[in-house]
Amino acid sequence: MDFRSESPLSIGAPSSVQALVDYKPLRCIVKLGGAAITRKNELERINEESLGSVCSQLREAMDSETTDTPDEVLGMDWSRRPGVSIDSMVDEFGEQPSLVSHSSFVLVHGAGSFGHFQASRSGVHKGGLHLPLVKAGFVATRISVTSLNLEIVRALAREGITAVGMSPFACGWSTHRRNIAFADVSQISSALAAGFVPVLHGDAVLDHSQGCSILSGDVIIRHLARRLLPEYVVFLTDVLGVYDRPPTHQNAKLLREIAVDEEGNWSIVNPKLEHVEKQVEITVVSHDTTGGMETKILEAAVIAKLGINVYITKAGTEHSLRALKGEITDEWLGTVIRSSKKQLHAFTGESG
Amino acid sequence: MDFRSESPLSIGAPSSVQALVDYKPLRCIVKLGGAAITRKNELERINEESLGSVCSQLREAMDSETTDTPDEVLGMDWSRRPGVSIDSMVDEFGEQPSLVSHSSFVLVHGAGSFGHFQASRSGVHKGGLHLPLVKAGFVATRISVTSLNLEIVRALAREGITAVGMSPFACGWSTHRRNIAFADVSQISSALAAGFVPVLHGDAVLDHSQGCSILSGDVIIRHLARRLLPEYVVFLTDVLGVYDRPPTHQNAKLLREIAVDEEGNWSIVNPKLEHVEKQVEITVVSHDTTGGMETKILEAAVIAKLGINVYITKAGTEHSLRALKGEITDEWLGTVIRSSKKQLHAFTGESG
Repeated sequence: MDFRSESPLSIGAPSSVQALVDYKPLRCIVKLGGAAITRKNELERINEESLGSVCSQLREAMDSETTDTPDEVLGMDWSRRPGVSIDSMVDEFGEQPSLVSHSSFVLVHGAGSFGHFQASRSGVHKGGLHLPLVKAGFVATRISVTSLNLEIVRALAREGITAVGMSPFACGWSTHRRNIAFADVSQISSALAAGFVPVLHGDAVLDHSQGCSILSGDVIIRHLARRLLPEYVVFLTDVLGVYDRPPTHQNAKLLREIAVDEEGNWSIVNPKLEHVEKQVEITVVSHDTTGGMETKILEAAVIAKLGINVYITKAGTEHSLRALKGEITDEWLGTVIRSSKKQLHAFTGESG
Repeated sequence: MDFRSESPLSIGAPSSVQALVDYKPLRCIVKLGGAAITRKNELERINEESLGSVCSQLREAMDSETTDTPDEVLGMDWSRRPGVSIDSMVDEFGEQPSLVSHSSFVLVHGAGSFGHFQASRSGVHKGGLHLPLVKAGFVATRISVTSLNLEIVRALAREGITAVGMSPFACGWSTHRRNIAFADVSQISSALAAGFVPVLHGDAVLDHSQGCSILSGDVIIRHLARRLLPEYVVFLTDVLGVYDRPPTHQNAKLLREIAVDEEGNWSIVNPKLEHVEKQVEITVVSHDTTGGMETKILEAAVIAKLGINVYITKAGTEHSLRALKGEITDEWLGTVIRSSKKQLHAFTGESG
């Protein structure tokens, strides 16, 4: 089965824009988990350290030709920031800078401590736009999540990543009974083809059955994976991966490899657990009201079924860098979710 | 000629979303001029006073049933702001609040002192996405203009206006030789039909001929007017309207009424000027590199030709409030640009 036989960039994008740019197959879709980039117990606080580390690793993973060249980064956030003078930014790009050619990535981030307060306080996820509180909550939720999106785009741009924010609501995406009803990816394809890194996010959107709903980052990832067929998908979160019980539990075991068959049933390949189906108590570790680890596995299973490997690991570690590069070895710590028809090279080659 | 015979909300919007909401014809498209809402001589500085006044007048104009009820405003910006505690916001919406039913408006803002530095420094408007500086400038420009958009949406939301930011780039809009090539308005129609106030802005977009370009707020207004057929269009700027010479000039005369014929030729109806065509020296007063007053008249003329009155006036004055309400009388100061086939009621009734 060749998933690349149909060019993913041909879906609905104006052909004349495409003709101008080089075709690059999509390498990776990355979910920046809300728990990894925000401080989950503080309202609307970014975890600057973790976000900075994620951006730096993303740049390293995207730069296919270079290794570490932080000195040559062309920062692309030329806007006011507290304590940074604009003049210094002007000097920075006084000469024609060189820009590393990125391999193509799409990023999707969760909301973490942004948006959830506004959404849950007003019940946007339950719909009912005729209710004043829901309509106000819709506006407030979008303000919160787009604030986060802007900060993430800026952090990426400072690392020299050609990030462009694209809100699902502005893209015209909508749901029906909370499932995606309309989500044209043509503007995302066009942005990719032009050499940009689209940055999407969980958003409040219109819903055809209940007026409005929350479209989660995980559902967006699944949809994009289906339409754009990346080589692999990475979920960055605040724990190493999926465990058989809450990771704080003394005997919690990291599930390192999960295989998904054609019917979507999944089984744990590594480690070998006894009575596995009864033992696995999937834990909701993430500060994500739209879906915890269980949702993540289910969404990941749908992607794996397409023949696309999904890597779940902890942001800001050597394991996240390897996952972003698609270089999974035996030493790698995290959870791989893959099609049962597709063997994992490193694992099977070295340990099987 | 009845411009309302075709429902503007039927253009491309998913029908099931529309079925859920009441149909409201679009009342007004407003351009918030960059010169009116930002401090033009200071990089990326909002003119808070002027913006606050614009938002307050917009709310008053939108509330068709009520007059001034500032005490009952349900603020919709529930995000962190310096010096404002989140707890006070929670209390604010403790009870089910009442929300005034807005008549439908679309807002488009210019960039003012946002975006222009980044765009002109890198030459985004000239295209050439293969050049690193242009690509970096594209990213930097979008960061700057979306920052402004977010701040304007927040200011509107604090006034109880159901504002939703919609970036043309994210909407998938593109240009060809700097003119609009693809600009589907279905997501804007859907947002309007659901009771929201879309807030668009001048943006960096992909261009089919030169790679990228700047799509100005004025061009967006013209496109939206054609597709959505509002009752009237208002341009808010930092001078009272169009003058026969630079408004700082001692003898400068405000052109109060301009008529546009079917070929797009325009003539000054009020005041009566001698040798008018040679005298009129259209002045570029606005801090807008994508188009000054001359562009504004030309764009306005295209709209007026459709039978839609265009009112140009100074933001934050009694005249801007009247324009936003569509209530133009003899005392009103500003420039009306209208179709030569359509008489202006107030002027013809009271002074003619």
